[in-house]
Amino acid sequence: MNYTFADRVRSLQSSAVRDILKVVNQEGVISFAGGLPDDQLFPLEGIADSFAKVFASGKHGLQYTETEGYLPLREILLDRMEKKGINNYTTKELMLTTGSQQVIDLFARVMLNPGDVILTEDPTYLAALQVFHSYEATVIGVTTDEDGMIMEDLEEKIRVYQPKCIYVVPTFSNPSGKVWSYERREKLVSLAHEHNFIVLEDDPYGELQFNREETYTPIAALDNGTSVLYTSTFSKTAVPALRTGWVVGPFEIIDMMSQAKQANDLHSNSLSQQALYHFCTSYDLDGHIETLISEYESRMNLMYDLLKKADLPGLKLTKPKGGMFFWLELHEKLNTTELLPKAVARGVAYVPGEPFFASQPKTNTLRLNFSHATTTQIEHGIAILTTLFKEALEEAEVTV
Amino acid sequence: MNYTFADRVRSLQSSAVRDILKVVNQEGVISFAGGLPDDQLFPLEGIADSFAKVFASGKHGLQYTETEGYLPLREILLDRMEKKGINNYTTKELMLTTGSQQVIDLFARVMLNPGDVILTEDPTYLAALQVFHSYEATVIGVTTDEDGMIMEDLEEKIRVYQPKCIYVVPTFSNPSGKVWSYERREKLVSLAHEHNFIVLEDDPYGELQFNREETYTPIAALDNGTSVLYTSTFSKTAVPALRTGWVVGPFEIIDMMSQAKQANDLHSNSLSQQALYHFCTSYDLDGHIETLISEYESRMNLMYDLLKKADLPGLKLTKPKGGMFFWLELHEKLNTTELLPKAVARGVAYVPGEPFFASQPKTNTLRLNFSHATTTQIEHGIAILTTLFKEALEEAEVTV
Repeated sequence: MNYTFADRVRSLQSSAVRDILKVVNQEGVISFAGGLPDDQLFPLEGIADSFAKVFASGKHGLQYTETEGYLPLREILLDRMEKKGINNYTTKELMLTTGSQQVIDLFARVMLNPGDVILTEDPTYLAALQVFHSYEATVIGVTTDEDGMIMEDLEEKIRVYQPKCIYVVPTFSNPSGKVWSYERREKLVSLAHEHNFIVLEDDPYGELQFNREETYTPIAALDNGTSVLYTSTFSKTAVPALRTGWVVGPFEIIDMMSQAKQANDLHSNSLSQQALYHFCTSYDLDGHIETLISEYESRMNLMYDLLKKADLPGLKLTKPKGGMFFWLELHEKLNTTELLPKAVARGVAYVPGEPFFASQPKTNTLRLNFSHATTTQIEHGIAILTTLFKEALEEAEVTV
Repeated sequence: MNYTFADRVRSLQSSAVRDILKVVNQEGVISFAGGLPDDQLFPLEGIADSFAKVFASGKHGLQYTETEGYLPLREILLDRMEKKGINNYTTKELMLTTGSQQVIDLFARVMLNPGDVILTEDPTYLAALQVFHSYEATVIGVTTDEDGMIMEDLEEKIRVYQPKCIYVVPTFSNPSGKVWSYERREKLVSLAHEHNFIVLEDDPYGELQFNREETYTPIAALDNGTSVLYTSTFSKTAVPALRTGWVVGPFEIIDMMSQAKQANDLHSNSLSQQALYHFCTSYDLDGHIETLISEYESRMNLMYDLLKKADLPGLKLTKPKGGMFFWLELHEKLNTTELLPKAVARGVAYVPGEPFFASQPKTNTLRLNFSHATTTQIEHGIAILTTLFKEALEEAEVTV
């Protein structure tokens, strides 16, 4: 039978993330592709104890609850937000969701008409691009450098497109691993106030900061409570399977997103929200994050050293200050989408850079995750990849 | 600040469900409003044991997983579907979701363009209406009687509106508690094949069948695998907090919904899916459902007897054969929306019938839930309500 789908699904038909997850699950493939934390570091015992506490408190916790989520967990998160300088809000303005992915989706759902313009970093989180396209928004990429969006390009695109919204991942960005400078964060907020657009600040990786002495002020902390929504998740600091994220921001927008969420799924898994409340109060979450940081930093350093040592002609590579990802720009003659099947055939997966771009894809880029693979896998996998890239350079007649 | 939202949120601005849940949570109000199962009957021990089993099996279960959900649970559900006669499908065509609410949302998202017509029963599940309106679909209600949609009205509306989809709750419907006859189920499927529309069969209450000797064949079991999607949930048989529902249907549509789900939330809470797998395999789910049935049936009978005994002039009332709801049609001079604040002031909540209608609201109708209140609350609450309705009839100069 031929089914006629809604126009909005056209953009969904090909999904890079979906293909990635399939590769990740193949036996024997070393995957630098997914954005996965390391299973072995999951605080299983703390999570199990937290669930036991919920069950011990009786049956009522298994009932339906309100759309915004379990209030005591929202109180704890509000407190954590305030410590980051985001202090314009109350629990009425903080909602729990099914991961921060749902925040991106609900935000787009309530904000974007077909044809409305949203600006993103170029490159940016590819599943956010998918969401914006699925609401038939016009997505325009803003050029970035080491310090975030280039402000001249941003101002030009604000002038030309009069965007309704801007989506950014300013701290240890996915995919680029970069950190916005304080000045650009401030400038973005002042542009938002001047030109009346709403910023969605997506910060899933902010806690995974390798150098604890620096301070990266959230963009939402520089706002006056009118123009920036901040979202994060427990997926990278606790565990992904609980699918618990949150969003904090201006009441009118949160309230509208909550109404959209009610239509979407009534409420998220509230048993997990209650367990995470116990996890936050009875378990040393910050100590656990320190463990993650130290482990991920050493894997990052290993991968960095191996990539440097391979001495690939034309390679551009920055050492990430946190998060989970390396962003590589190879010699301009290499095409990472074309090279992927060869890499997978040799037993290594990565994500080609192309789908991360809103506007002008650089086909010689790729993203490598360093948080999921073991050190042995990193050594083995990077050797395979750099050999493959060298061979491709030779084929392209670049002197290696 | 004045925010400009997307056009699609216009329909979200007033939400009856939201207001209901607020009333439900007020201390001291006897609520017949929400569609809540009874907390006291939750199989807490079985659920707790099931989670313990997941935790005992190691850390991998806490990782990200695929969008369609935990495969072993999908296998079990497929088996349960086959026992109901829905046997055109494999696990590729069965996806786990955040409750069946998310199924309704994803279905609308992939099927309905603004202006596309979807037919529903009149009255129907109000949160489904909300979803369809939020995608700017045109929702047309089809008149119903004791046996489901009236086929003459359905055929007329198919002719006039050429609907793309039809949404039905054919077994112990929310709100009306009615059951479609076999003939009408068959007729709907043959009309779907003839006129090329897709049916979403929502069956959250089907397991709660008071007379186990009758058989209510799912509409999906009468299809040839092309035109009917079937959705149900663990919320009414196990517990709501796990927010686990599922949908089974033609691959092309399930696959598209899966892609939309990936944009929506990547995947649902997979820890709960794994726990529900253990719950289904190690715990006597069907035995538990028998307990629920026997308890809910006795509450239904009590409420029915009390309503009958009150002898309200003009009352139309049918004894439900399953599910959780009574649907009352009062004397035509009474307006249940206007009477609600008075009822709440006296300590009882219900849902006025108006928001359940897609097309022609009957303002003298209301929905009463019988699964959540205790017998004492039912006795006390029905006494308050019937007294209130009698007073209102006297005021309206109807002879009581």
